[in-house]
Amino acid sequence: MANQTKPVLHGYFRSSCSWRVRIAFALKGVEYDQVPINLIRDGGQQLTQEYKTLNPMQQVPAVEIDGITLSQSLAVIQYINETRPGPRLLPADPKKRAQVRMISDLIASGIQPLQNLYVIQKVGAEKMQWSHHFIDRGFQALEPILKQTAGKYCVGDEISMADICLVPQVYNAERFKVDVGQYPTIKRLNQALLEIEAFKVSHPSCQPDTPDDLRA
Amino acid sequence: MANQTKPVLHGYFRSSCSWRVRIAFALKGVEYDQVPINLIRDGGQQLTQEYKTLNPMQQVPAVEIDGITLSQSLAVIQYINETRPGPRLLPADPKKRAQVRMISDLIASGIQPLQNLYVIQKVGAEKMQWSHHFIDRGFQALEPILKQTAGKYCVGDEISMADICLVPQVYNAERFKVDVGQYPTIKRLNQALLEIEAFKVSHPSCQPDTPDDLRA
Repeated sequence: MANQTKPVLHGYFRSSCSWRVRIAFALKGVEYDQVPINLIRDGGQQLTQEYKTLNPMQQVPAVEIDGITLSQSLAVIQYINETRPGPRLLPADPKKRAQVRMISDLIASGIQPLQNLYVIQKVGAEKMQWSHHFIDRGFQALEPILKQTAGKYCVGDEISMADICLVPQVYNAERFKVDVGQYPTIKRLNQALLEIEAFKVSHPSCQPDTPDDLRA
Repeated sequence: MANQTKPVLHGYFRSSCSWRVRIAFALKGVEYDQVPINLIRDGGQQLTQEYKTLNPMQQVPAVEIDGITLSQSLAVIQYINETRPGPRLLPADPKKRAQVRMISDLIASGIQPLQNLYVIQKVGAEKMQWSHHFIDRGFQALEPILKQTAGKYCVGDEISMADICLVPQVYNAERFKVDVGQYPTIKRLNQALLEIEAFKVSHPSCQPDTPDDLRA
């Protein structure tokens, strides 16, 4: 395509939604630039007027790609999938594709929004229990679904958008002290996926904006 | 297809996620059966062990279709779109399709999960202000995006999944006393869409489980 300059990811090393996009770029072998948006410093750099024009929800990520600006990580991932060569991120079979989207949305609509920074700031003192509760509840639903759909990865033996959503959510679960050992399928899949190069290079522990004390 | 018996939608007349699926079926002209799951009666019929096998998240909708059971309305809508003839529910152009998914996810991940029944029950006494806050915040982000993408409908002049998400969210906004008049593009699009047959026949005011006092 004529307008394929390098995409720019505005994200944060520890944001699970930014990590999703980094995994998708890595799986597709797409080079991109990162602009760090520090969600904590200066009261939250996502709240500036300048950033608001990129993502009016004032959240990360926002991605400039092919002349448009996109937010919402699953929309970005599917756009990358549909416009870039390399391994497909959703299966060819419509039923399997629906299962990938179901698992992705269970995480992206059913879990993550309830434990994101803005919401838990609003919850206040109870934020640890609140986040723990909603992640645990989501994993209780996810485990039996994955038991049915999983092969080597979330849906069969092909890495997909569902895997891209799972690993960053497990990372958040651990931050909020959820005992992932209770969910043997989730635990097994997460371990297998963390061995894969695209999940390693995109990990929060090794991004340009990762603070020194959190570096792997 | 050989296995196309009538799909079964397990839903609730007033659930915005159930309404999304009803609109998609109606736009595609697909006949389906409805099984009402009353979210209030008996302490919540979505909480039974029997329903949990259909949707482990214990939310509506759940859809039995082509021999599989799907939850998460956007996964269901895209499956319907990809397997049924009739007007497409996502645009052919990848950039427009990405915008449709961005708008859909802004609603389905960024607004609705924060005001759904389970969450506001957990919020307790503050639930009206909480829901009002999160819908208003989402609409403040949605309005400038729609101003850029909209033609007659949310993205250009073709009805899409974004419209399917918008109308039920405006319905919820009104329930929680959000002044939709502050958002001229959202208001205009909602009014135009409510004139369309598929949005009318699927409306919460005329479903099999709509109580008599809420019937249109």
